[in-house]
Parts: sequence; C-alpha cells; structure tokens
Amino acid sequence: MVTPPLGRRPGKRDTRTEIVAAAREAFRTDGYDGTTIRSGARRAGVDPSLVHHYFGDKAGLFVAVMDLAHDPRRVSEQLALRAGSKGAGLVLAFLDIWEGPASTGEPGSGFIAMVQAASSAPEVATALREFLTERVWRPDGGAPGWGPALVSAQLAGVGWARYVMRVEPIASATPEEVAALVGPTIDRFMAGGQAPEGAGTATE
Amino acid sequence: MVTPPLGRRPGKRDTRTEIVAAAREAFRTDGYDGTTIRSGARRAGVDPSLVHHYFGDKAGLFVAVMDLAHDPRRVSEQLALRAGSKGAGLVLAFLDIWEGPASTGEPGSGFIAMVQAASSAPEVATALREFLTERVWRPDGGAPGWGPALVSAQLAGVGWARYVMRVEPIASATPEEVAALVGPTIDRFMAGGQAPEGAGTATE
Repeated sequence: MVTPPLGRRPGKRDTRTEIVAAAREAFRTDGYDGTTIRSGARRAGVDPSLVHHYFGDKAGLFVAVMDLAHDPRRVSEQLALRAGSKGAGLVLAFLDIWEGPASTGEPGSGFIAMVQAASSAPEVATALREFLTERVWRPDGGAPGWGPALVSAQLAGVGWARYVMRVEPIASATPEEVAALVGPTIDRFMAGGQAPEGAGTATE
Repeated sequence: MVTPPLGRRPGKRDTRTEIVAAAREAFRTDGYDGTTIRSGARRAGVDPSLVHHYFGDKAGLFVAVMDLAHDPRRVSEQLALRAGSKGAGLVLAFLDIWEGPASTGEPGSGFIAMVQAASSAPEVATALREFLTERVWRPDGGAPGWGPALVSAQLAGVGWARYVMRVEPIASATPEEVAALVGPTIDRFMAGGQAPEGAGTATE
C-alpha cells in the first residue's frame, strides 16, 4: 500500500467529489449566473485555483455537476430488459437521472437548472454538447449523426414537458408510462427503422 | 365611422401592439429577469398601469410577446399540403415561428428567450402552458391529453437541439429536412397510430 505524501489532501478523487457536491448545491440555490468559481470553492472549503485546475472554467464545473456519476449507456442496457426495448430503457434511464434515488432536490430540478444554464450561457450549451458527444453520442470521436441527435431531441423534449412546462399527462405519469409511449420513437430514431407494430401508440 | 373620444390614444389595438413590440425588444436585450413592467412601459412610452391593464403581470406580457401573431393551427394547415403530412407541416410551422420572416433577432433567439424565461420563472411556464392549452392544444377547454402533450414535447425537443444545444445535423439542416424526419413521429403522436411506412426514418 502506498502512503500519500504528508500534507496532501487524502486523495484527488475525494477533493474533486467534494467540489462537485458543493458546486451542485451552489448552482441549485444561486442559479448558474449567481454562482462563481470563487463561491463554489468557498462552499467546498478549497482554494479557487484548485477548482480551475480540475474543471477549467464555470462551464466545465457545471458539466461535472451534470455528470451525476451515471453512464447512460450502461444504465440503459440494465433497464432495457425491464422496459421491454432499448428505447424505453433509455427513457427510463433519462428520467432516473433527474428524479431517481441519486438525484438531489425536487424531482426534475437538475434538469431545470441545466436548461436554465444552457439557455443563458452559450458556453454551457457548448460544453454540454461536447460532453454528450464524447461520453454518450459518439465515444469513437465521430460526428453524432441524425440518430443520436434526434434521440437527444426527443428526450430533452420529454424533460421539458415533464419538469419545466409540467404538461399533463406527461408531468404526472409514471416513468414506465412515459417510457412505453416514447420508447418506440426512440427505437425508430436509433435504428433508422419503424416503431414496433402496435407498441406505444398515443391515445387520449 | 366612429371618431374616438378626444385625448384618448387612437386605438386599443395599436397601443397594445406597441407595448408588445417594446416588450419584445426589452426581453431580447435585458432577458426575462432584467425586464420589468416599468421598463417595458418606458420603452413603449406608456404608463405602467396600462401594461398591467392589458397583460396583468410580467408573465402575461411575456406570453403576449411569444404569441407572435401566429395561429399555429392555421399555419399548419397551409403548410401541410406543401410538406406532405400534417405532422411535417406542424414542424415547418414551428420552425417558421422562430426563424421565419416574421421572427426578430438571430434565428432561434426567441425560442432561447422562451426557454430561459420558462426555466427561470415557474409563473412563465404556467402562463405559457395555459396559453398553449387555450389557443393550440385544446381550444374546447378540455385537458390536453397525451397527443398534444407528446407533440409539444417533440417540437420543443427539436427547438432545444437546433437552437440551444446546436446539435448537428439538426442545427444546420433545412426546415424541410427536419420536417421530413420528425413529421412522421408527430403524425403518430397526433393520430395515436403508426408512422407511415418507409417515411422519415433516421439514417446516419
């Protein structure tokens, strides 16, 4: 076992995690505009230069907060079996990020904070897009293409209707109901094919 | 012809239109948070009480700005013939609101302002939802139901990907390309049925 040098914080990972947790709280209570690298550092009890070192700028810090320690692809595979299709599993995974056990605050508050920050600051939208491209849409480095772009548009629209606009019946439906209705569209966008016959049709 | 009483502004409609135009400019340059009933009234050269009289509160004023003198249902019917389906026509109408000849500022800037305002102020989301329910989703007064809710989620997601996140290829595609790909999903959500065979499949 390697003993860390005296005088250093016990581990890079813990410091980073503490900063992200403090920043999450700062963004939640003060909003994106009201939060600074300095105020985030103060909450975490570290020097602002350390926040710059780990995250670059405020947009980078915000993306780290949005990361939420989830890997959407892995989660989706787990949920696809339960949900019946890959698309429905992806919808469940998406909703789980914002209202599942690992989310903080009111259900959907993280999504609302993300929408607010990305629409207020173009650099946040750019950082989120680069993060999603690298981690989710196209880990092999290519351009996202129509499939991932349309899937992300559909998922974002569901979050918008459910959390921001609170449009019924989307707002009060269970995640499983939403997944059953929207999943086939996701499947179609992902596969470049048709939705399964008779599945997920919208009836009033 | 009826002559308006002396000392009154020439017509309710013109004053209202002037206030909306001034408020649009105020929301665009100062954002939702930076705009007040008072600053909007000052720009329009009217008394703040008149703005309160016409629009109630700031959220009501914002919804009037969002109205844009469009009736999405009427526009959609005109475009449906050109686009090939009602769903594709609705997508074209939606994109036309934010980037067509009648839009102001950068393409999509009105959508970004709407997203920013609704995610920052719950009363804006509520006012927009009530406006859409009354004017677009359910003019007969009933609850929107799954069809309109899913259609609005899909359209909002397209706007999110195209204007806020600028996800390619959605961001740079022509409105007709977007309509061809997303239209069948809208048709399916509206009809409670399947997308037309072979239409609008996503390929990378």
